[in-house]
Amino acid sequence: PKLYRKRPKKTGLPPGTLITAAELKEGKAKITIIDYDESHFEERSVDTIEECFPFKKTPTVTWINIDGVYDVETIEKLGGHFDIHPLVLEDIVSVGQRPKMEDFENYIYLVIKMITFDETKNDIDAEQVSIIVGPNFVMSFQEHPGDVFEPIRERLRNKRGRINKMGPDYLAYSLMDIIVDNYFTILERVGDRVEVMDEELIANPLPETLVEIQKLKREMIFLRKSVWPLREMISGLQRAESKLFKKQTEIYLRDVYDHTIQVIDTIEALRDMISGILDIFMTSVSNKMNEVMKVLTIIATIFIPLTFIAGIYGMNFQHMPELGFKWAYPAVWIVMCIVSLVMLLFFRRRKWL
Amino acid sequence: PKLYRKRPKKTGLPPGTLITAAELKEGKAKITIIDYDESHFEERSVDTIEECFPFKKTPTVTWINIDGVYDVETIEKLGGHFDIHPLVLEDIVSVGQRPKMEDFENYIYLVIKMITFDETKNDIDAEQVSIIVGPNFVMSFQEHPGDVFEPIRERLRNKRGRINKMGPDYLAYSLMDIIVDNYFTILERVGDRVEVMDEELIANPLPETLVEIQKLKREMIFLRKSVWPLREMISGLQRAESKLFKKQTEIYLRDVYDHTIQVIDTIEALRDMISGILDIFMTSVSNKMNEVMKVLTIIATIFIPLTFIAGIYGMNFQHMPELGFKWAYPAVWIVMCIVSLVMLLFFRRRKWL
Amino acid sequence: PKLYRKRPKKTGLPPGTLITAAELKEGKAKITIIDYDESHFEERSVDTIEECFPFKKTPTVTWINIDGVYDVETIEKLGGHFDIHPLVLEDIVSVGQRPKMEDFENYIYLVIKMITFDETKNDIDAEQVSIIVGPNFVMSFQEHPGDVFEPIRERLRNKRGRINKMGPDYLAYSLMDIIVDNYFTILERVGDRVEVMDEELIANPLPETLVEIQKLKREMIFLRKSVWPLREMISGLQRAESKLFKKQTEIYLRDVYDHTIQVIDTIEALRDMISGILDIFMTSVSNKMNEVMKVLTIIATIFIPLTFIAGIYGMNFQHMPELGFKWAYPAVWIVMCIVSLVMLLFFRRRKWL
Amino acid sequence: PKLYRKRPKKTGLPPGTLITAAELKEGKAKITIIDYDESHFEERSVDTIEECFPFKKTPTVTWINIDGVYDVETIEKLGGHFDIHPLVLEDIVSVGQRPKMEDFENYIYLVIKMITFDETKNDIDAEQVSIIVGPNFVMSFQEHPGDVFEPIRERLRNKRGRINKMGPDYLAYSLMDIIVDNYFTILERVGDRVEVMDEELIANPLPETLVEIQKLKREMIFLRKSVWPLREMISGLQRAESKLFKKQTEIYLRDVYDHTIQVIDTIEALRDMISGILDIFMTSVSNKMNEVMKVLTIIATIFIPLTFIAGIYGMNFQHMPELGFKWAYPAVWIVMCIVSLVMLLFFRRRKWL
Amino acid sequence: PKLYRKRPKKTGLPPGTLITAAELKEGKAKITIIDYDESHFEERSVDTIEECFPFKKTPTVTWINIDGVYDVETIEKLGGHFDIHPLVLEDIVSVGQRPKMEDFENYIYLVIKMITFDETKNDIDAEQVSIIVGPNFVMSFQEHPGDVFEPIRERLRNKRGRINKMGPDYLAYSLMDIIVDNYFTILERVGDRVEVMDEELIANPLPETLVEIQKLKREMIFLRKSVWPLREMISGLQRAESKLFKKQTEIYLRDVYDHTIQVIDTIEALRDMISGILDIFMTSVSNKMNEVMKVLTIIATIFIPLTFIAGIYGMNFQHMPELGFKWAYPAVWIVMCIVSLVMLLFFRRRKWL
Repeated sequence: PKLYRKRPKKTGLPPGTLITAAELKEGKAKITIIDYDESHFEERSVDTIEECFPFKKTPTVTWINIDGVYDVETIEKLGGHFDIHPLVLEDIVSVGQRPKMEDFENYIYLVIKMITFDETKNDIDAEQVSIIVGPNFVMSFQEHPGDVFEPIRERLRNKRGRINKMGPDYLAYSLMDIIVDNYFTILERVGDRVEVMDEELIANPLPETLVEIQKLKREMIFLRKSVWPLREMISGLQRAESKLFKKQTEIYLRDVYDHTIQVIDTIEALRDMISGILDIFMTSVSNKMNEVMKVLTIIATIFIPLTFIAGIYGMNFQHMPELGFKWAYPAVWIVMCIVSLVMLLFFRRRKWL
Repeated sequence: PKLYRKRPKKTGLPPGTLITAAELKEGKAKITIIDYDESHFEERSVDTIEECFPFKKTPTVTWINIDGVYDVETIEKLGGHFDIHPLVLEDIVSVGQRPKMEDFENYIYLVIKMITFDETKNDIDAEQVSIIVGPNFVMSFQEHPGDVFEPIRERLRNKRGRINKMGPDYLAYSLMDIIVDNYFTILERVGDRVEVMDEELIANPLPETLVEIQKLKREMIFLRKSVWPLREMISGLQRAESKLFKKQTEIYLRDVYDHTIQVIDTIEALRDMISGILDIFMTSVSNKMNEVMKVLTIIATIFIPLTFIAGIYGMNFQHMPELGFKWAYPAVWIVMCIVSLVMLLFFRRRKWL
Repeated sequence: PKLYRKRPKKTGLPPGTLITAAELKEGKAKITIIDYDESHFEERSVDTIEECFPFKKTPTVTWINIDGVYDVETIEKLGGHFDIHPLVLEDIVSVGQRPKMEDFENYIYLVIKMITFDETKNDIDAEQVSIIVGPNFVMSFQEHPGDVFEPIRERLRNKRGRINKMGPDYLAYSLMDIIVDNYFTILERVGDRVEVMDEELIANPLPETLVEIQKLKREMIFLRKSVWPLREMISGLQRAESKLFKKQTEIYLRDVYDHTIQVIDTIEALRDMISGILDIFMTSVSNKMNEVMKVLTIIATIFIPLTFIAGIYGMNFQHMPELGFKWAYPAVWIVMCIVSLVMLLFFRRRKWL
Repeated sequence: PKLYRKRPKKTGLPPGTLITAAELKEGKAKITIIDYDESHFEERSVDTIEECFPFKKTPTVTWINIDGVYDVETIEKLGGHFDIHPLVLEDIVSVGQRPKMEDFENYIYLVIKMITFDETKNDIDAEQVSIIVGPNFVMSFQEHPGDVFEPIRERLRNKRGRINKMGPDYLAYSLMDIIVDNYFTILERVGDRVEVMDEELIANPLPETLVEIQKLKREMIFLRKSVWPLREMISGLQRAESKLFKKQTEIYLRDVYDHTIQVIDTIEALRDMISGILDIFMTSVSNKMNEVMKVLTIIATIFIPLTFIAGIYGMNFQHMPELGFKWAYPAVWIVMCIVSLVMLLFFRRRKWL
Repeated sequence: PKLYRKRPKKTGLPPGTLITAAELKEGKAKITIIDYDESHFEERSVDTIEECFPFKKTPTVTWINIDGVYDVETIEKLGGHFDIHPLVLEDIVSVGQRPKMEDFENYIYLVIKMITFDETKNDIDAEQVSIIVGPNFVMSFQEHPGDVFEPIRERLRNKRGRINKMGPDYLAYSLMDIIVDNYFTILERVGDRVEVMDEELIANPLPETLVEIQKLKREMIFLRKSVWPLREMISGLQRAESKLFKKQTEIYLRDVYDHTIQVIDTIEALRDMISGILDIFMTSVSNKMNEVMKVLTIIATIFIPLTFIAGIYGMNFQHMPELGFKWAYPAVWIVMCIVSLVMLLFFRRRKWL
């Protein structure tokens, strides 16, 4: 994953200018509206944002979901009708925000990171999800089509759980909760890779393993950067005492806060494991090196003296009495064997063999 | 120990849905009831959870212990009768919670980790213990049968100490205290292994030792992760000023808080020791390597020049006057001895021998 | 970049003595005045500072920009007329200040670092920008001519955005905002270099790469040192509740605060990446070393025994029966081949080949 | 020193059960009583604890010192008579407590570590000293006979300083002060060893040095663990505003607090020094290794080509014209000398010689 | 510099006993008095401390400077007359104090470290300066004669700046300010050494460089230890709201506080640079090692096979047909050249040449 994200060139433009940082730069956003209360449920896909405007006045809870923050025009119109501050709109489309909570009296603006695992690239990625919670509506903005919110829609459709009876604050909580739950899935995948690596490593440390370890490390940094501010954001929400978040939703916020802490704990534990793996890797590499050196040393130190002895009797001096002795040749062999044995015993005593 | 724990697949389910994360997924929980006050003591093993319900109204202290959080149905019924919030029930069965304290007005919910040492796997493991303290009852939930609470039952049976005279808050304290006390036993075992390792290490650093050190390190991370939040949890209990925890129990909470700090201190000290051992290991390995290199160097640097000299007089030139000299051969031997001696002196001066 | 900056020798001088630490020590400052309100706009370049004095009384917003803090005299006169405290003037000209905010009742003094990338030196540099915000004026002081404020002047000229309708607090915010926005540009450049390095590194670790990595590391330290206090400064501004900063500007301050946090996050992420690169570098170097050692070992351990065998039959003993055998020479060749093969198989089994 | 201390097996016993963790498990404690006020001084060694009881009522200051916390019975009786909480008594005899302060309304309980240097074992050790400060008495409990309090007794006997005129709070302060003063003596000893090591290290890094460095490191961890909580304890005492500690003693508490901070500073400085020494050690070891390698390389690279040349003319080809040349042998010598010289120049240019 | 300082043996003495820790243990202190107000200035060197006593009553500001805290008697007398608490006097003469601020109602006691660079020893050193600020006097105590206060005396003599018009609080500020200003000079010297080292290092890493780096590191630790508490001390002074420090001096305190933060920033930056240099050093050393190894490997792997070939034809078998071939000798040379070329190509492909 990229640890930082390029911002569109907008230095010097007045604040509130909407320039999207989403990668896919054009096209229309996909807009879906879900309108519900305890007794009523309506789901609609609309083409123009104007179709959402009537819902501003209705007492039912309206969830407007917009896939594609690159559609600046649509977001500007929506913001204009619902009186959203231009800086908020700017943050929605400039997708490199960190998770945060901003309390405007009439609505609360939440930014949260949705982590996805891209099977094809074998890499994790983060998408900015912006949520605006008003007195009778929730708006959610995503970078691309495709989200993790389907189970919530399913629950709304089937009136399962208490979601239909509760207000927009509970819906916003549900959105956050499902995103945080999704982190666990991502972390399990990382955890599995860490464990596989852990077992394979000692047997055979390859240079590629280091690259893989570094990639995992970077993923952990990436996740950490996405999740740490979330903790602060949720506890900000708890402390804000906004009238938009009702007393009875508080305990659910505490629950999602607990999950966030668990995610952070798991990230830290995985970081510790990865750093331990790195240590083992380093030592395995240097152990291999030591073995190589030992073999060289043993072979060299055994044969160098022997070669020297052979060299001695390869000299061409006319007066070398040994050369004429009958048993000289076998005697030299015996001397060589003894030298080798002494060497081998020495190595054994030093525990090199 | 596994530093993270897989959660059951429940992303998208409504909050309060009970899906257990305990490994053993089916079967009935084992339910035991102890009912006591200063004069009265009754201990019972029951089959159905409904037998506990009458105790809700009695003025005596009732301790309901449930072994097996995988029995979701039983826990749901119990929770329903005693008005426990569904999110609490969810946390009880989703056993990957971190130690925490949640104050609902009518009861306090505590999560704590019980650390056990598995002799067969030679590994430590953690089990989530949930405790609910009400005005006249204490419920404790464990993952598996088999616990460390037997001495408390014994004290209740024999009316030893002040436990029978005190309320459910004191019983809850006793449960926490015995779990924390148990940490010391685990730490002593680790400490012993660290000391043994410390002594053996310098003599003979083996690659397996590194794996063992890493395992100890990981155990320390695991323990730390289990114990750190406990500190916060107990001090939260002290600050909560709940009417459920009476003034006279406060000093006992302070005592168990002190023990927690001692456990943390010991964990940190052991971490420091383990990291010191790792340093010694690394240096021992590189010292061994240096010795190997030294031997190679000494042997090679002594014999390479000698072999060269022998090579010189192995040449077949027709005009090599030395070859005909009578004393040439012994002279070459003397030269070789001198060269060797000079080398040896050089090594000695450099303190390599 | 230089991590510390020499201060002019002024130890012992009374506080408030103006001695500039800017590198270019002489010359006149370049003074430009922009005077505007919702309906009116005037831009002027003046030669003497006295021409600014009438604007003290006008109700319009006046922005006095001074390029060249080395012109001590001009700054002293300006400070005298606008009742700026001598210590503030001293800080303006002693350019090694860290970002800070000082609230004098009649004006607020801000110090901020403008980071520029010097293409010719291929190095980043920081310039101190001092901003004084009064009830109807903003003064900005820069070390050298050339700044990043041009887009703001352009917006004022064209009455784009809400800048002309707002007071001096909004102008001051705009100046800060554009400086902070500029940090992203610098960070992207660094980020690009880090990514290029990351890819090239594993293939070919050169000693120069280490120098380059260290340089990047130092740049990150430099940036961090410039940006961290900014965060504190802006949050100080938010908390100050000065009447000079109006309620409606608050949300813009929050926006620039968010950007600062994002900059800090990016710096930390880049630091982590650079430290990961350093790890890969170290391991690549030691991997290369291992390869070299392996080649040496393989060549040496194969040929040393062979050379020994050749040495044996190069001996000149009169009684060496093998020398007379007809098949001895090819037999020796066969033995040598077998020895080599055994060695090669041994290396293959150890996975060295 | 042992970084952790075994606790006696008491898991499951009711809180307040006195089981000593002191190493010497039996025998009678040594009890001494000093009773004094401005005009009066009495010092007594008593056999049974009951002799202390009358002093509970007297208006004079009574200092009861008990050497030997293993004498559980005596401590229980004393605690019973003076109304000390059972948990305090338990902490007194379970000597593994960390320094702490507990304010019971009628008395304050202090735990502090007395560090001693055991000359015979060449090791430092810590002993738990418990101090109970009441309205007209001070009790001090030590693990073993032999303490550092003698100078205070001397001052009381000779009525030197203001100690006789002050209350039990001042006496308690004096006991703490002398224990803290003693830390400096221990630290100086460590400091001396560090400096000696520092000088010897570069010349000759031995494997044993590493063990010694690790021992010092561990001692620093041990001291740190003993002293850090002391700081908190004293500042707790300052904030407690107990009526037992009078206004005029406050400044003395601040003084001993300052000393504690100094001790901590010195420990941190020594830790930094030791870690620097470790770095130098590592580099010295690897420098030695490099020298060894250099010598090997120089010898080998000079002689290997020479030996090859000698090998060439040791070949037995029938048609080698050089063998018959008259000046061939000296010519080969000249070639060899040139080769050696070229090698030596190459090494010199690379600064290896 | 010595990171810790020996305390005189005073364990057990009553608090307030004056035993100096200054190195020079005897002699008379040098006493100078400066008495001034807006219109009046008097400077005097006195022999006996009694001559200072009359100034206690005068309304003018009196600055008593004492060089030589080893003159315990003088300090005791002074303290007695001006009602200074014995513990303060003890701290003045026990020169190992850390920077701190103590507010007694009638006077404020300040401890600060004056850092000096000893050219002869090429080392930095710290001297404790104690300052007592009373309603109409300032006392300053130094360890040795020779100080950095001369410019302040000069300003007082010449009535330059506003110092003569202000009270003792401003004088105390001036003393602190000049000491802090002096830190910058020391840091610049260190910074210069770091930069020189940085450039020389890559070219030629010597073992002595490591010692030098460690020395710089230790100096940084030393400075840090001296300066960090200063920050706390000054902010304590700001918060104290003592009537001795007037409103108008507050902004000057803020200025010296800013300088302290800058000093700390610079120290941290230098620490980062030094640690970077250490990394480069380590890598340079291991790069050199790699080069040595490469040369050895190249020479050895080229010549070992060649020597083997020569060895083959040095064998004395009677039946070696090649020996009789006419072109055998040149053929062997050709084979050898080919082998060498193959080797060299292999090395080139691996980028070792």
